[in-house]
Amino acid sequence: MFGFSLRPRKPSPAATAKERLQILLAHERAGGASPEFLPLLQRDILEVVRRHMEIDGEQVEVKIERGDELSSLEINIELPGASKIKAKAG
Amino acid sequence: MFGFSLRPRKPSPAATAKERLQILLAHERAGGASPEFLPLLQRDILEVVRRHMEIDGEQVEVKIERGDELSSLEINIELPGASKIKAKAG
Repeated sequence: MFGFSLRPRKPSPAATAKERLQILLAHERAGGASPEFLPLLQRDILEVVRRHMEIDGEQVEVKIERGDELSSLEINIELPGASKIKAKAG
Repeated sequence: MFGFSLRPRKPSPAATAKERLQILLAHERAGGASPEFLPLLQRDILEVVRRHMEIDGEQVEVKIERGDELSSLEINIELPGASKIKAKAG
């Protein structure tokens, strides 16, 4: 139904040394007429993530793919570690 | 490296009758010590999406999976159509 699907897999112990956050966005358009808003969402979503976690620009990797009917955006964030995560609840 | 990967595929004409947005989040933790912030991110991200698109609560489907090392969140949004997308640039 959508452009990509969730495939959780158990990470190996070596791969879990750092905190990581991955955000994937897929926008499926009807006819390709709507504005390209994924880049706008990217900026806003990173802003939202920063509310909860301390992240540096260098730790953020963004890949964007544009198509007529499907555009996708992948944001990979390496986090400094559990200790620096802001536990702002509510 | 991460819990899921992007697998773009060409949607069939029948599947593109509506606008859709899918957001996937995967949080990989080092040791499982950090707070569960995906539900907080979910709320904030939906807020951000609403800035750009008109969406109703019923059109939003959320799936969350919690694990010791990997938590994931899937948000599927059916959009009312290209005509109602707010083209707020900048």
